[in-house]
Amino acid sequence: MKTKKFAVVLAGSGVFDGAEIHESTLTMLSIAKAGGTYQCFAPDKEQAQVVNHLTGEEMPEKRNVLVEAARIARGDIKPLTEFSPDDFDAIVFPGGFGVAKNLCTFAFDGPECSVDPEVEKVIKASVDEGLAIGAICISPVLMARVLPEVDVTIGEDQETAEAISKMGGAHHITDHGEIIIDEKYKLVTTPCYMLDATITQIAEGTDNIVKELIYMIENS
Amino acid sequence: MKTKKFAVVLAGSGVFDGAEIHESTLTMLSIAKAGGTYQCFAPDKEQAQVVNHLTGEEMPEKRNVLVEAARIARGDIKPLTEFSPDDFDAIVFPGGFGVAKNLCTFAFDGPECSVDPEVEKVIKASVDEGLAIGAICISPVLMARVLPEVDVTIGEDQETAEAISKMGGAHHITDHGEIIIDEKYKLVTTPCYMLDATITQIAEGTDNIVKELIYMIENS
Repeated sequence: MKTKKFAVVLAGSGVFDGAEIHESTLTMLSIAKAGGTYQCFAPDKEQAQVVNHLTGEEMPEKRNVLVEAARIARGDIKPLTEFSPDDFDAIVFPGGFGVAKNLCTFAFDGPECSVDPEVEKVIKASVDEGLAIGAICISPVLMARVLPEVDVTIGEDQETAEAISKMGGAHHITDHGEIIIDEKYKLVTTPCYMLDATITQIAEGTDNIVKELIYMIENS
Repeated sequence: MKTKKFAVVLAGSGVFDGAEIHESTLTMLSIAKAGGTYQCFAPDKEQAQVVNHLTGEEMPEKRNVLVEAARIARGDIKPLTEFSPDDFDAIVFPGGFGVAKNLCTFAFDGPECSVDPEVEKVIKASVDEGLAIGAICISPVLMARVLPEVDVTIGEDQETAEAISKMGGAHHITDHGEIIIDEKYKLVTTPCYMLDATITQIAEGTDNIVKELIYMIENS
């Protein structure tokens, strides 16, 4: 069996202004445990905000999404502009507010949000090339904004579920570790920290999403 | 069986100037998988350096160890001054250069390093109260500096092993996932990213160290 190649798109480093660290780390662990390889990517742009994770307050600082995401990737990360769908079998978007602040403007604009042009291009190219796509936690809002009539889950948060409907998506309620599959887009979603979860439940979610992505790659 | 309570001491957030993110996250996962609970702590002090993890170069910035460590802990973290050994069965120090830059000065001063007074106090109090202690990656240098004639491993790096000897410790060569036990201090060490490791090997290391810590707690 050929080694499955995953791209992992990070939105910074830290749940309140970047990529959620546990979801990102455990996505990489799930891929490696399943025998896959991964390459991290992030947009090379200024973060929308820098948040003090102790107090929850915004800090008067500027940080770069790619430079901060490199912390999670131990330096082994590329700018998102270098992503080519030809190089990968699957692409995964872990969650964290960075997805809703840096990859799109959902945290500020809700269902009227705009998506970073490079991120939109990457999602559309991944669909066009038939990559299997994973979206964790809040990342399904990206998919709902970019892909028409998508089937996704963000768990059970009513406001976010309604926003997904307004963007033309169909939301499905899920519990810890459960996944929703949209076969037309080869897209798998799971709630992770969109629910009040333990770290073992996050690991269950990333394991399940990676298993389904590998199944999709092998059966398409 | 009573739930085992772990303190996890973080040295920031990011391998080059803080706590290694995978080791920290996977320590928490290993504890939770084994049925334990954890509380994160970090010293409330300025980082020795801020390193751009994309380029490896120092950045002209100031960041606080506790505030950055809060990113890994999702905000659920306390200043190290609030640690009391009475509240815990075990204490674990994940690795990362932050250990050798913020918790002690090993990265700059080698075997002549000084240890942050609060960190030294916490290690000594943990030994005095009979807590099981875990030290991952570069963290065993802390133990070698604070505890006389300690038995530890940092893998196979010769320079660091010699520094441990100079500080009065005994270094034991280990491979991925292997642990060294010092029964007199109830101390367990494992190399993790001190070796050129994969993320699955890190998970193996944190699983093994947590299993041994639990064994020590139950058999003392």
